[in-house]
Amino acid sequence: MTKQGLLLVLSGPSGVGKGTVKSAIVKNKVFPFEYSVSMTTRAPRPGEVDGRDYYFVTVAEFKAAIAQGNLLEYNQYVGNYYGTPVGPVKAMLAAGHDVLLEIDVNGAKKVREKMPDGVFIFLTPPDLHTLHLRLENRGTETEEVIRGRIEQASKEILVMQDYDYTVVNDTVANAVDHIKAIVEAEHVSVSRVIDSYRKMVKEN
Amino acid sequence: MTKQGLLLVLSGPSGVGKGTVKSAIVKNKVFPFEYSVSMTTRAPRPGEVDGRDYYFVTVAEFKAAIAQGNLLEYNQYVGNYYGTPVGPVKAMLAAGHDVLLEIDVNGAKKVREKMPDGVFIFLTPPDLHTLHLRLENRGTETEEVIRGRIEQASKEILVMQDYDYTVVNDTVANAVDHIKAIVEAEHVSVSRVIDSYRKMVKEN
Repeated sequence: MTKQGLLLVLSGPSGVGKGTVKSAIVKNKVFPFEYSVSMTTRAPRPGEVDGRDYYFVTVAEFKAAIAQGNLLEYNQYVGNYYGTPVGPVKAMLAAGHDVLLEIDVNGAKKVREKMPDGVFIFLTPPDLHTLHLRLENRGTETEEVIRGRIEQASKEILVMQDYDYTVVNDTVANAVDHIKAIVEAEHVSVSRVIDSYRKMVKEN
Repeated sequence: MTKQGLLLVLSGPSGVGKGTVKSAIVKNKVFPFEYSVSMTTRAPRPGEVDGRDYYFVTVAEFKAAIAQGNLLEYNQYVGNYYGTPVGPVKAMLAAGHDVLLEIDVNGAKKVREKMPDGVFIFLTPPDLHTLHLRLENRGTETEEVIRGRIEQASKEILVMQDYDYTVVNDTVANAVDHIKAIVEAEHVSVSRVIDSYRKMVKEN
């Protein structure tokens, strides 16, 4: 009985260290993840391979992919388009592979709309987590700095509430350990496996 | 910010090995669980201590506890009552401790009604999990044995669907590892921590 793979979406505020955590996951081969290859209109850099590093396409091709609903999400960055093709992701999941997407919070929001069954992890800045402790020593910071920090925290919490898990990136090793536990737990969640049990009984 | 503890309910079909897995969890001190002490009307055995092994009460006291809604669940077994007092469980959770309840499936159902936020783990017989494989070698068993097994499996799956996680008890070590991952993941689930983040911002 081939079980559908997990779509794991790793996101969080810019600067939180999503890329570093993803690299650690890739290196730490405990996770048998597949990785989604992005589509882009920017030119390949020396050594980059089409279909491995990116799918390199023209602006017209990219716009056609948008129009046909072939992208899970996309954005523009310094004049180029970047997006996540939906086809390869769905094919890998159907084949029972887990897929990891590391993506900014706007992209994650769009992925949630199209694939609500994904597991969404909000990588949390340690200073959001420790804000409480630090605020107890207010003497060391100006009231303006503190107000600004609280306002930013409020915004981050508003984003966090649409995620399934919040993993504090205090150290990369801790974050990877937590993500590993989340993947393991999600693989034995009843909502994800009950259909294969039901099917097994029905077919016999 | 004291976070509410997790109520972990470990259940499953009789004979699946709930007690063995619980003992392994108690021995394996990686889990800082508190354990609920049951209330019973049976007489203490030599060496048993009131309040440690059980709360030993009279039938009248037990019935009063039922009437006052002081039991999370209870049942009768060879003429004696056994039940789970709700007060100590709620106090431990409020103090931020995780609480483990090992309990039969009828008891688990009642606990779910009263404490829907608990984490419910269905310990799954390995032969339910491997039924599929074994049914492929039908030649070795009579059709009647196979029918009976499938019927039992259907019933177990009906119970399983009300749980959060299904952990196959193929080896105790594997089951404990999975339970550990579940506890770790649940501790970083957004639904469990978002309130403490919101409170932190609001109070500053």
